[in-house]
Amino acid sequence: MAHEPSKGLADVVAAATALSDIDGRIGRLSYRGYDINQLAGAATFEEIAYLLQRGAPPSRAELEEYHAEIMAGRELGALVTAYLPRIAHCQEPMEALRTLVSLASANDPDKDSNAPDANLRKAARLTAQQPVLVAAYEAARNGRAMPDPDPRLSLAGNFLLQVTGHGPTQRSSEILDACLVLHADHTMNASTFAARVCAATLSDMHSAVVAALGTLKGPLHGGANEQVMRTLEEIAKNAQRDPVEEAGSDVAARLGRGEKIMGFGHRVYKVEDPRATHLRAMAAELAATAGDDTYYRMSRKIEETVLAERGLYPNVDFFAATVYHYLGIPTDLFTPVFSVSRMAGWTAHVIEQHADNRLIRPDSEYIGEAGRTWVPLGSR
Amino acid sequence: MAHEPSKGLADVVAAATALSDIDGRIGRLSYRGYDINQLAGAATFEEIAYLLQRGAPPSRAELEEYHAEIMAGRELGALVTAYLPRIAHCQEPMEALRTLVSLASANDPDKDSNAPDANLRKAARLTAQQPVLVAAYEAARNGRAMPDPDPRLSLAGNFLLQVTGHGPTQRSSEILDACLVLHADHTMNASTFAARVCAATLSDMHSAVVAALGTLKGPLHGGANEQVMRTLEEIAKNAQRDPVEEAGSDVAARLGRGEKIMGFGHRVYKVEDPRATHLRAMAAELAATAGDDTYYRMSRKIEETVLAERGLYPNVDFFAATVYHYLGIPTDLFTPVFSVSRMAGWTAHVIEQHADNRLIRPDSEYIGEAGRTWVPLGSR
Repeated sequence: MAHEPSKGLADVVAAATALSDIDGRIGRLSYRGYDINQLAGAATFEEIAYLLQRGAPPSRAELEEYHAEIMAGRELGALVTAYLPRIAHCQEPMEALRTLVSLASANDPDKDSNAPDANLRKAARLTAQQPVLVAAYEAARNGRAMPDPDPRLSLAGNFLLQVTGHGPTQRSSEILDACLVLHADHTMNASTFAARVCAATLSDMHSAVVAALGTLKGPLHGGANEQVMRTLEEIAKNAQRDPVEEAGSDVAARLGRGEKIMGFGHRVYKVEDPRATHLRAMAAELAATAGDDTYYRMSRKIEETVLAERGLYPNVDFFAATVYHYLGIPTDLFTPVFSVSRMAGWTAHVIEQHADNRLIRPDSEYIGEAGRTWVPLGSR
Repeated sequence: MAHEPSKGLADVVAAATALSDIDGRIGRLSYRGYDINQLAGAATFEEIAYLLQRGAPPSRAELEEYHAEIMAGRELGALVTAYLPRIAHCQEPMEALRTLVSLASANDPDKDSNAPDANLRKAARLTAQQPVLVAAYEAARNGRAMPDPDPRLSLAGNFLLQVTGHGPTQRSSEILDACLVLHADHTMNASTFAARVCAATLSDMHSAVVAALGTLKGPLHGGANEQVMRTLEEIAKNAQRDPVEEAGSDVAARLGRGEKIMGFGHRVYKVEDPRATHLRAMAAELAATAGDDTYYRMSRKIEETVLAERGLYPNVDFFAATVYHYLGIPTDLFTPVFSVSRMAGWTAHVIEQHADNRLIRPDSEYIGEAGRTWVPLGSR
């Protein structure tokens, strides 16, 4: 009865969704039918979160209401507020976020309900809280107070203000906003799929998002952007000569040893990931104004090398690393920044799953020994 | 390219496993090739956890060593110990367990490693800690101290001692031990699958188990045993006449209204779930000695009714409810007891996934509108 095993479920359709679509042959990603090339730089992250969670672009009045909901939803609740400072000293960033979002359900007024309106409110609150959790974690581990949010700033701008401790430039806010738009959803990626598997038992949105956070943490998924930056930092630190030349030869040597280079290739895209195109341009712009464009030039060299040697294109993680670096975000918070954005998609997928649910319960192929006889302990 | 959508992935093989196998046509479940009919009542839960996690039944010396590892692994760590009392007052049982296991990674000496030996040690610790977390939660919310564990008792016996606050009879320990054996693993059930999706990004064992806990929480999965008991309690409370007769007519009426009866039917079994057979016998035995066998007789009546009206057999959750009830476990801890057992399977699946990994990243079918044009906010 069962289909042939498909390791990793590549090419198996696991769910129907109206949230996002990828055409991997031509490198197109769209959210609810809007090509992201129309959205990046033109729509704010709040508009995209609204679009994904609520189905259509908001009118000005709807956006103002959603903005107010986001500002009110930033409140972390008593339990998170009490425990965050110590957790920030005891757990790594993604580990801490997994714990903190799990804690946060305690103070959510809709926690016991999967009703459509409760899910919409929870989605807005989770989207509002994620950047605050990341920034509060960063402030706490550095023993500094977190600045109050500025109601005139976007979610992206307030995140930069609170995570770095100083007001962002207009252009930094715009660039991070575009990054958040680009990362907001991506069909059945592993963390989103984990969230849907969880939600399909009719478990609640916080449980699903906690499952997604733990899944995003992995180096084969959200953890990749941090790994890209670590590679750049390591090459630059050990460089005996021009780090750009070093980057090319180092990566060529890694490829020669059969190693995987983080930030390249994707199961779905056969051409360049459209998000990478935008992120490369942002990295170039930030590098030009940063005073030191070494990491950007190293990245370009690595890109050239991997394309020439393996025919692989950079994925979303590759240039996101240099962009976040130039925006002043600490390297170990790169994956958390990904979660700030993907929260919009995760929550929208939970809403969609609950609205037309069936338990996700696949088969497995048994590959062990069969028909064994149990020998009691005394006779073993 | 992609296969036809299979809603809920029924009949799609998502992974190969040597841990457990189900033959749904004849109602057979086996762990590593041993039919559970050989194991229930004959092997301890510790032997089965060892079998699943380490691949073969332990010798006496190996079991003693594992037992020592389990006793040492019961230590909850500083962060969990500090926060558990307040969490027990602020979060529901499964919500709290999701948070507490996520917190526990902070104090795990192997938390940063997915190496095979580190995974084995973490699996033993997580298996050891889960019953302590459940019992400590129960003690904390009732404001009583938890008794110290008795090194002569099994994991099941110590759990009963600590969760109820008084020493269990030999037979109670044996029955709970058999329950834990029966619930230890079950191929690609939703929580195990969520754990594997998480682990396949090369995220860590705690993240995978936290994803599984949030998934087990859902009423279509682990939450079902609690729902079964709530139904029994509600019928008994509202009964105007003999609650057994009332149970039959109440369930017939629910079926007539097209409602789903919790604890019946299973995607995989076409005949009786072999675990239900054992659990029915345990429920009968406990009812006979309990002095009041009403819930057992009600359960039998419901079973008869659902079989006659719908041809559905009870699944693992149906008689587990009455068994846990007669063992003195509070109803809202039934799903947590399930997690105490399934921890053995979850951790073994993470070990197996990490040992031969490929990212689990399915496709989706896009069912929304396409080719839309984004109108900027000012023009909307």
